[in-house]
Amino acid sequence: MAELPVAPITRIIKQAGAERVSGDASTTLVELVEQYARKVAEEAVALAKHSGRKTVKKEDIEEAAKRV
Amino acid sequence: MAELPVAPITRIIKQAGAERVSGDASTTLVELVEQYARKVAEEAVALAKHSGRKTVKKEDIEEAAKRV
Repeated sequence: MAELPVAPITRIIKQAGAERVSGDASTTLVELVEQYARKVAEEAVALAKHSGRKTVKKEDIEEAAKRV
Repeated sequence: MAELPVAPITRIIKQAGAERVSGDASTTLVELVEQYARKVAEEAVALAKHSGRKTVKKEDIEEAAKRV
């Protein structure tokens, strides 16, 4: 189920100004980010199908992101 | 700036039901996901600092996610 790696998410939290990051903080953000990605992806797939396309395109992702 | 890898995001779009995914669809979703992660991370850092902590904890991420 989990697709995204943890290390880049820890880096993002540190870049946001954290001095230290607990391990479960990083894994929780990985889960939230992945949920967000899956919601946008599902909406984008629906939009592509609605347009009669088998390929999900950039504009499907952009339009989907407005809706989640 | 970009921290997250593209391949897992492409897999997430395919798992959502896409037959094919254009390359710029994946990179666009990477950017959106990373924006989301940075917003949650910034809010979580602010919450941790407000609580007088130097460590960002799981509860900071969870509370931050409600606010973005």
